[in-house]
Amino acid sequence: MYTVSTQSINVVKNGNITTPLGFSAGGIHCGIKHKRLDLGWIYSEVPAAAAGVYTLNQFQAPPLKVTKESIAVKNTLQAVLVNSGVANACTGDQGLTDAYEMRQQFADELGVLEEDVAVASTGVIGVPLPMEKIKWGINQYGDKKTQDPSRFEKAILTTDTCIKNIAVQLVIDGKKISIGGVAKGSGMIHPNMATMLAFVTTDANVNPISLSNALKSVTDRTYNMITVDGDCSTNDMVLVLANGKAENNELSESHPQWKQFVKALEMVSQSLAKQIARDGEGATKLVEVHVKGAATEKGARQIAKTIISSNLVKTAIYGSDPNWGRIVCAIGYAEQPIQPDKVKVAIGNISVVENGLPMPFDEDEGTKYLEQENIQIHVDLQQGDAQATAWGCDLTYDYVKINASYRT
Amino acid sequence: MYTVSTQSINVVKNGNITTPLGFSAGGIHCGIKHKRLDLGWIYSEVPAAAAGVYTLNQFQAPPLKVTKESIAVKNTLQAVLVNSGVANACTGDQGLTDAYEMRQQFADELGVLEEDVAVASTGVIGVPLPMEKIKWGINQYGDKKTQDPSRFEKAILTTDTCIKNIAVQLVIDGKKISIGGVAKGSGMIHPNMATMLAFVTTDANVNPISLSNALKSVTDRTYNMITVDGDCSTNDMVLVLANGKAENNELSESHPQWKQFVKALEMVSQSLAKQIARDGEGATKLVEVHVKGAATEKGARQIAKTIISSNLVKTAIYGSDPNWGRIVCAIGYAEQPIQPDKVKVAIGNISVVENGLPMPFDEDEGTKYLEQENIQIHVDLQQGDAQATAWGCDLTYDYVKINASYRT
Repeated sequence: MYTVSTQSINVVKNGNITTPLGFSAGGIHCGIKHKRLDLGWIYSEVPAAAAGVYTLNQFQAPPLKVTKESIAVKNTLQAVLVNSGVANACTGDQGLTDAYEMRQQFADELGVLEEDVAVASTGVIGVPLPMEKIKWGINQYGDKKTQDPSRFEKAILTTDTCIKNIAVQLVIDGKKISIGGVAKGSGMIHPNMATMLAFVTTDANVNPISLSNALKSVTDRTYNMITVDGDCSTNDMVLVLANGKAENNELSESHPQWKQFVKALEMVSQSLAKQIARDGEGATKLVEVHVKGAATEKGARQIAKTIISSNLVKTAIYGSDPNWGRIVCAIGYAEQPIQPDKVKVAIGNISVVENGLPMPFDEDEGTKYLEQENIQIHVDLQQGDAQATAWGCDLTYDYVKINASYRT
Repeated sequence: MYTVSTQSINVVKNGNITTPLGFSAGGIHCGIKHKRLDLGWIYSEVPAAAAGVYTLNQFQAPPLKVTKESIAVKNTLQAVLVNSGVANACTGDQGLTDAYEMRQQFADELGVLEEDVAVASTGVIGVPLPMEKIKWGINQYGDKKTQDPSRFEKAILTTDTCIKNIAVQLVIDGKKISIGGVAKGSGMIHPNMATMLAFVTTDANVNPISLSNALKSVTDRTYNMITVDGDCSTNDMVLVLANGKAENNELSESHPQWKQFVKALEMVSQSLAKQIARDGEGATKLVEVHVKGAATEKGARQIAKTIISSNLVKTAIYGSDPNWGRIVCAIGYAEQPIQPDKVKVAIGNISVVENGLPMPFDEDEGTKYLEQENIQIHVDLQQGDAQATAWGCDLTYDYVKINASYRT
């Protein structure tokens, strides 16, 4: 964990992916969805250092393969094109051909190199991309009315109930650096699973290899620490673009302010991750599980994620039931070595378990705490110095409704 | 997998744990629960070879420790005492003292060795056992009215909606051998998690070490292949007692009919496991996932369990939605090496995915199939000869209701 202060990092009011210099974004309705925006783009005036992380699902969708190929050429990107409504997953050779064509068409429209364009898709799987609609949409790029970052934020959504964005600023080498982010997640459209997409832009000048390292470590602490229902999609992708417009000295691990930059990247990523968790299907509460005193960070992460993934914990929180037994149970089956008689658990500030034994507490106070929208669970394993935080949501009637009966 | 024919193994009508010779069972209401039976016992006329498997949860409840100690002395048991209502978990030193005392009291009442008695508990955690009530209950053992295997079947239930039992018979060395079983599972009582208990009796003469090996391998294919909500309790336990009353030659791995005995033990265990899955909280359907063509049996098990554990698959089945995308997605994130372009999936007899690509099928036919109570999902990975089957249930409004709002 970085112990850098966040005091010098400021959240920008109404900030977004175009807060950093040299980025523009937009979106249109090209006809994949019935009415809503369904095609969006991000553009940088100059090629930007770029890095990505991708789903570990072995059914990886074609756009991920194409985007990886783009970045591999020279670790840069100048534009990102995203469609929602159709995921272009489980589409075989045709899907790959379509993803290449989508990239080619947008590169031609912009007059940039094909390998400087990334593509992403989210929506129905097993259905081919409607390429005529996408081509028509790409041709509308020049229309000024479509240029608006909020249109991009909307164009990538599926069953999300709200847009997800943030921007922060900090000073590096005396230059103001901005980092902006946008995400979608936890949506589900027939016959598909939740897809998480996140795009981060910055005008910082960053070495691309260092940027990739930073993204990987930040992802392990943010995007990989959220769960809505434990299902990991075929299309998950996080991209970061750094175009250098802020004109700082190149950031890398040897730069004196490197950790501060990574901390800012983590702030943006954590905010997006929490926004995704809070907007989990049917969710009424954001749940944060903090595990400390673990022997290893990996162990702390595993235990935090096991608690946040437990259907029994999630339903108890929905029912505002301070059911510490379910939390203890999840700690016990997380497959990490623990000493049961050292475990402490608190729900908010209410200590419910000390040294593995239940503490007397006011159940009404516990219920009252859990009736709030933001719930914190604290676990102290008292066996080391490592810690981790995971985010999730409650499991509700609406989750079942959204996923079982939206066809009727 | 054993390829032994099951033709020579017969299910006994109305069979139970007293179908094998020399076993009796009963139960009473001792006052832990409000009204229902809450203390039950199994007794064998002679000490029986015994083996057990126990939860891997690190918060293991005291009764498990005491029962393990009993069996460790000479691999025999003559009696089992089970209470429901209070789990005696997270109860510290007092809990261990109480479990020892419960064992001692019952051994004294029966006039058997203390180390020939096993104890088990299920119910609320973090609450001490009401020892006076349990002692009073033990003293009622001599009452003929309490002797009835169906009373034992009821006395171990928590929020289960039905009793779970079976018995089978086969002939070994010209002697009729019976194997009986009883289980409880998937119940949940505040502030607790589901506990699975299963007890298997047989009048076969079995070497205790061989019996233990057989139970472990059978457990991996049966009790360990069911999931209701993925949460593994502090109190899970499976015991098998073999008292030799059938007077066959001692069964062990070198006996020519050993595999047939193990197959019969597996039939009993699989039946109990499926009864538990079907009675999952709020469940309306029993779901069976069969994975074949895997490189390893471990891999096949992992993939089958990942599919059956997916909330998205479980809600789709509840909604009778032939949502193959969610099945494919679960296969992809099961963390087992697969070749996506070889994967085949069928829902019942309806082929929905071939070589990783969707097949056209009649969605109405798929919905109609999924409206049944017994659902089968077939996966063929086409990369080896290993296979596995997992059982589970759908995720419903009632699951959320039972676990979130039973307090109101």
